[in-house]
Amino acid sequence: MAEAAEKTTGSLAERLVAGDKRALARAISLVENRDPEGDELVAELYSRTGQARIIGLTGPPGVGKSTLIGAICAELRKAEHEVGILSIDPSSPFTQGAVLGDRIRLSDHFLDPGVFIRSMATRGSLGGLAEASLQAALLMDASGKDDVLLETVGVGQGEIDIVDHADTVILALMPGSGDSIQALKAGVMEIPDIIVVNKCEHPLADTMVREVKTVLALGPQRSWKVPVVRTEASKGEGIEELVAKIDAHGDHIREEGTLEERRARNLRAEVLGIAASRMKRELEERAERDPHWAELLDRVVRRELDPASAARELLQQQGDG
Amino acid sequence: MAEAAEKTTGSLAERLVAGDKRALARAISLVENRDPEGDELVAELYSRTGQARIIGLTGPPGVGKSTLIGAICAELRKAEHEVGILSIDPSSPFTQGAVLGDRIRLSDHFLDPGVFIRSMATRGSLGGLAEASLQAALLMDASGKDDVLLETVGVGQGEIDIVDHADTVILALMPGSGDSIQALKAGVMEIPDIIVVNKCEHPLADTMVREVKTVLALGPQRSWKVPVVRTEASKGEGIEELVAKIDAHGDHIREEGTLEERRARNLRAEVLGIAASRMKRELEERAERDPHWAELLDRVVRRELDPASAARELLQQQGDG
Repeated sequence: MAEAAEKTTGSLAERLVAGDKRALARAISLVENRDPEGDELVAELYSRTGQARIIGLTGPPGVGKSTLIGAICAELRKAEHEVGILSIDPSSPFTQGAVLGDRIRLSDHFLDPGVFIRSMATRGSLGGLAEASLQAALLMDASGKDDVLLETVGVGQGEIDIVDHADTVILALMPGSGDSIQALKAGVMEIPDIIVVNKCEHPLADTMVREVKTVLALGPQRSWKVPVVRTEASKGEGIEELVAKIDAHGDHIREEGTLEERRARNLRAEVLGIAASRMKRELEERAERDPHWAELLDRVVRRELDPASAARELLQQQGDG
Repeated sequence: MAEAAEKTTGSLAERLVAGDKRALARAISLVENRDPEGDELVAELYSRTGQARIIGLTGPPGVGKSTLIGAICAELRKAEHEVGILSIDPSSPFTQGAVLGDRIRLSDHFLDPGVFIRSMATRGSLGGLAEASLQAALLMDASGKDDVLLETVGVGQGEIDIVDHADTVILALMPGSGDSIQALKAGVMEIPDIIVVNKCEHPLADTMVREVKTVLALGPQRSWKVPVVRTEASKGEGIEELVAKIDAHGDHIREEGTLEERRARNLRAEVLGIAASRMKRELEERAERDPHWAELLDRVVRRELDPASAARELLQQQGDG
C-alpha cells in the first residue's frame, strides 16, 4: 500500500506495474485510442490483475455520483489504500462540457499521489467505450491499486455494461429518483448489492428510503440483505457507513465463496461482449464501404427485401470474408 | 379503413392481408417463437409494409404508458382508424405478473374489431425480443392497420431499440420522472418528437412541465419544436391535443421530406441490429456447447489469457467455422 515514486526507466509495462502514474495514464490513452499497443499491454499484464477490489457505482444523472466517488475515495485514503477511479460517461458530445464540470468535485484528489483519476467519454460506439473502459480497469488493477472505483450512469450501454465488472455494485439514488425506483420494482433494473440515498437532507429523503426498502422487500430474498445507506456526500456524511457496507459485502461474498464465481461469470460475459461489439463494428464499417452491402440496404429501404432476410444475407457474406 | 370480416379461407398471408385478426395473431406467434415460417411470412409481406403510420411511446415504468396508449387508441378510433398496438416489455420473468396487470387497462379495446393488441415479453435475450417486435410491427403494418402503436419502457434494449422504428417518438413522463429529465439534460437520452406529461393533476405537474421546457430550450433548436402536452390519460384529458400533435409531426416530416430519410435510416440500422444480435446469439450458443470455447473462457477466468485476446480468438474461430 506504499505510494510508489515515479519510475522513469524500463518498459511501459514495468513502469506501470511499479506504480508510475504517468505510465498508467499513457497506457489508458493507448486503449482509449484503440492502439494495438494498448491491447498488447493489457495482454502482458493480465496475469497481474484480479488483486484489486473492484467497486462499481451507478445511478441516474444528477444524483451526485462524482461527489460520492470523491467522498468514498477520501475514506479509503484514510486506510492508506491506493485508489484508481474510472468515470465512464456515455453522454453525447453535445453536453460533455456540462458533465465534465461535475468532475471538478474530484479535484481534491488530483494532487494525491495515492489516487489515480481518469474519465472516459464516448468516441464513437458505446460498445467501444465499454471495451476501452474494461481494459482501463484491468490496467488500474495491474498497476497495484487496492481499490478500483468504476462510476457510470445507469443506462443500457450496448454489449457490455462496465459496472458488471465490479465485485460490489452500488446504486446511487436521490429523492426524486422515481424512475429508478419504478425500474427496480418492475424488474427492469437489476438489484444492486448496496443502495445509497444521497442528498439525504432533502425533505423527501425519508420517503425515498422507505420506498427503496419496500421495493427490496418485494424482491427475492437472498443471503445478502441489500443495505440502504443515507449519505450527504458533499459533506462526507454517511460515507464511513457506506465504506463499512462495501467491506461487509466483500467479506460476505468471499466467505460465501461467490466472489470467484461472480468474477468468472463476469469475465466470461465480458469476452462474449467484446467479441459481439467488435463484430457489430465490423458490420457497420463494411456497410459503409462495401457497395454491394449498400445496395442490399437500399433494397430494404425500397421494400424489396425484408430486414431479417437482408441481415441473413449480410451474415452469410461476412462469414465468407 | 373498413373493418374487415374474418376470412377463413386462403393462405395465412392472404388472410392476414385481408385483415383477419386470428391470422395476424398466429403470424405474430410464429415470429415470437422464432419459427422460420414467421420470417418467411414477413419476407412475403414486406412489400406491403410502409403504409401504416408508426407511433412509438416510451417512458419510465409506472408513468401510465398503457393507459396513454389506450386513450390514444380511443381517439384514433373516433376517426375510424384501424389500430395495431404492440406492447414490448423487457422486464424480468420474476415480475411479469405485476406488469401484465397494467395491460388490463387496454381491455376496453379487446372486443373492438378495429383494434389489434399484442404484448411481447422477454423470452431469452433482449436482442431476440427486439427482433421479434420489429417483425410483429411489420406484420401489423402489412395487415392494413392505419396506425401501429409501439409501447416500450425507455431503457437500452440491446442491439435494436424498437422505438427507433417509429415515424414519431413520444416520451411519456410524469411528475417524479426526475431521472429521465436529468438523462435528457445530460444528453444520455435522445430528444423525442413529442413529450407528454401524464398525471397532470399531480401538484408537481407544473414544475415538471417547466423543467421539461427548460431542458428542451437548452438543446439544439431544430425545425420541429418539440411540444410538451399535458394529459390525464385515465380520464382521456389532453389526448385530443396529443393526437393533434402526432398528426402535426407527421405532416411536418412529410412536408419537410424527412419521413423517407428517417425510415431509410431506421431500416438500415435495423438490418445491422438484427445481424449483430444474431451473431451475438450464435456466439453465446457456441460458448455453451463448444468445449474448446469453454476452455478458452476458463483460461480468462484463471487470468492466463486476457479478455480482448480471447474475444479475438473466438472471432477468428467463428469466422473459420
